[in-house]
Amino acid sequence: MNCVLCTPNNENILWSNDKLRVIRVDDPNFPGYFRVIWNHHVAEMSDLSEEDRCYLEKVLLTVERSVRSGMKPDKINWAQFGNMVPHLHWHIIARYRDDSHFPESIWGIKQRDAQLSRLNKWKDLADQTSVLIQKSLAEI
Amino acid sequence: MNCVLCTPNNENILWSNDKLRVIRVDDPNFPGYFRVIWNHHVAEMSDLSEEDRCYLEKVLLTVERSVRSGMKPDKINWAQFGNMVPHLHWHIIARYRDDSHFPESIWGIKQRDAQLSRLNKWKDLADQTSVLIQKSLAEI
Repeated sequence: MNCVLCTPNNENILWSNDKLRVIRVDDPNFPGYFRVIWNHHVAEMSDLSEEDRCYLEKVLLTVERSVRSGMKPDKINWAQFGNMVPHLHWHIIARYRDDSHFPESIWGIKQRDAQLSRLNKWKDLADQTSVLIQKSLAEI
Repeated sequence: MNCVLCTPNNENILWSNDKLRVIRVDDPNFPGYFRVIWNHHVAEMSDLSEEDRCYLEKVLLTVERSVRSGMKPDKINWAQFGNMVPHLHWHIIARYRDDSHFPESIWGIKQRDAQLSRLNKWKDLADQTSVLIQKSLAEI
């Protein structure tokens, strides 16, 4: 099996333990883009034990709360696809009305160029939020 | 407030109670497309009480299990955006390698026309799965 998510490679890891890792995604259009990757190679939520699933849900919720608190986005987006890499991972993304794709999903059609001043602001907030995520996850 | 999800309108409701409703989405490209809509107008997962959130997660998992069992898809996709309608709702979609968009998300760029024979097969499976979802949700 040759899965790119089984072994972290060039990931900006904010938090990790034996179960999962939380990374910050390097996407210039979406500075507030975080990913939660389950370490073990399973494809679907229902492949997890109840205990593991509850833990993952708790982590996802903690990331959402940190992003809401730290970035005050217009909306939080969650997605779990795995069509390209069938190894369980979740996308959590801070969305703003004036980002490049809103109200489309980030996988949809681009609507506009986001203003550089806005992107810089979001990046600053995402920097602070990354610390908040680390602190929040240390407490659960 | 004029929210199109606050009141069900022309929805194919498979299951509902005072908390939420599960609908089958009428999308000719994706017969195995289900949506779970929280009845009360909240925007984000972290707006729910812990009890409500756990219940919603249980319902989402039950839908996933029914779709896996009934449709044997290549992958299940989950998404919660709400950019257009900021009223909490989840998409759960059965994906196949030869569907119109795979491996892109269904909100991404179309890759091909799906074969009619495959679409008909998926629709039959989704019909059976709709009954399975109803039965499974009646038991939780």
